[in-house]
Amino acid sequence: MNAEPLASWRDGKIKSAIVRFVERITAPGGPDFLPPADRVATFDNDGTLWCERPLQAQLYFAHDRLEKLAAADPSLRERESFRACLDVDVPAIKRLGKQGIFEAIAAAHAGITQDAFDTLARDWINSAQNPKLGRRFRDLAYGPQLELLAYLRAHDFRIFVVSAGGTDLMRSFSEEVYGIPRANIIGSYMKTRVEQCDGVTQLIKLAELGCFNDREAKPQSIDVMVGRRPILAFGNSDGDLAMLRYTVSGEGPRLALLLHHDDAEREFAYDRDFVVSPLAEALDRAAELGIHVVSMKHDWSGVFADPT
Amino acid sequence: MNAEPLASWRDGKIKSAIVRFVERITAPGGPDFLPPADRVATFDNDGTLWCERPLQAQLYFAHDRLEKLAAADPSLRERESFRACLDVDVPAIKRLGKQGIFEAIAAAHAGITQDAFDTLARDWINSAQNPKLGRRFRDLAYGPQLELLAYLRAHDFRIFVVSAGGTDLMRSFSEEVYGIPRANIIGSYMKTRVEQCDGVTQLIKLAELGCFNDREAKPQSIDVMVGRRPILAFGNSDGDLAMLRYTVSGEGPRLALLLHHDDAEREFAYDRDFVVSPLAEALDRAAELGIHVVSMKHDWSGVFADPT
Repeated sequence: MNAEPLASWRDGKIKSAIVRFVERITAPGGPDFLPPADRVATFDNDGTLWCERPLQAQLYFAHDRLEKLAAADPSLRERESFRACLDVDVPAIKRLGKQGIFEAIAAAHAGITQDAFDTLARDWINSAQNPKLGRRFRDLAYGPQLELLAYLRAHDFRIFVVSAGGTDLMRSFSEEVYGIPRANIIGSYMKTRVEQCDGVTQLIKLAELGCFNDREAKPQSIDVMVGRRPILAFGNSDGDLAMLRYTVSGEGPRLALLLHHDDAEREFAYDRDFVVSPLAEALDRAAELGIHVVSMKHDWSGVFADPT
Repeated sequence: MNAEPLASWRDGKIKSAIVRFVERITAPGGPDFLPPADRVATFDNDGTLWCERPLQAQLYFAHDRLEKLAAADPSLRERESFRACLDVDVPAIKRLGKQGIFEAIAAAHAGITQDAFDTLARDWINSAQNPKLGRRFRDLAYGPQLELLAYLRAHDFRIFVVSAGGTDLMRSFSEEVYGIPRANIIGSYMKTRVEQCDGVTQLIKLAELGCFNDREAKPQSIDVMVGRRPILAFGNSDGDLAMLRYTVSGEGPRLALLLHHDDAEREFAYDRDFVVSPLAEALDRAAELGIHVVSMKHDWSGVFADPT
């Protein structure tokens, strides 16, 4: 273990709460000791592990994919969800909602194999840049969070990403950037059908939603894919509230954290008014529910990690 | 590594194929070397990792649960699926099918929390006995398979159970018996709803199927929950054929194995005629598809593992 494993976390109530919690559940023979199998931690992705402004990377991915598809078939522009993405029309995106946009864009990829989609996602994530910050999306992971992931791993936690973002896109970088295996990515996805193509079994994307993994769907998908109530969860929006409550209301030691983007200088300052994923109810009820609010401005000495 | 890690596997073509495959993909600098992240192995459960005769443990669990429920509400007997389970009426079970039975029994548990169901499943698995073999179900795991799991783990494989059996029941013993984490169990399950009960977030079982994980559903659920095509898969029935083909038709080194129960003396001899999970098409097409057929009688020097 590094002498200073959480170097980018400033000393204070939050850092102490994290360290005390981990020490408590890992102290051999201690009253709150938990074996590694029980050390499940779940993290939201957009706005929790990496930057989600001006809009989530998922929406820029949709935009760039649609530009390619619309070049071949201009009639796609006529569909409101596609037009909203192509024009990055924020009020229209808000009206359609995260799920509406996800379903529409995903449906545009019906007929493609999972293998081919994975290649598309990898190519995109390795080149696409955040339009405001002038860095690749994959280089906008938060340094303090990567330290926290490493710290938890060093204490034998099993870490899962639980996000409304598309599973496929997250899997295209999760191992390289977060050190989190593809199997530990729990996101939104479309159904597939099985087809034999030249003797090879392929999974073909359908235009039918499998799961939109937001709000109440988060504890549900954790139950299906992890089979254990987390002991630690970290989010940043109302979409994470159900997961944070599921975590913190279990028996024994629990830690729920909510990242508050209050740092206009180093990143962005936003909460209630963010069009796609507001933070309002979770912020208002954090104290009552025992959720720790992390201030990006005060609790983090740095924001972005060095590019990988 | 133990000097003899596959001690219960007899020398021969199958054992050689397993050892050669593992050596090939783990040889540092070798042409077929794969990093640990790519070493995904998937195993069917019933009839592959443990005994499924006279019928799958899942059906006896359903029977025992229904006896309790019918004691409180005798009208349950009137439903054909329940009656078939209560009477262990094999022709009726065959007519209703594995999925029909699973859905009916699972629906009888609507309203119960996942936490409470987990307790029911644990209590049952720790006491219930196979009616024919006079041993607890949990003590009927196959020794050679436990050795194979340990051998693969020692070579940094990530192992998943992919079964049509209920996820909840498998998770009640997978860590203790197989050493496989609950998160790595991919089975059939019912949907849930989220509810706040006395300030605690609970997941309540619904009478609505989430996934029946048989046949084509196996590659689909592997894609959702693992995100990688396996390089090794092991099954024992036609319900596993789609998973075996998905595995063996990928690029690079692959190993697909099919356990043939041809050992009436030490276990059971059955294939085409087994009511619930026949083995016919997979057996007929194994050679053509490059699937290795494992003979329980000839390839295993022992069958059941010592009880845990």
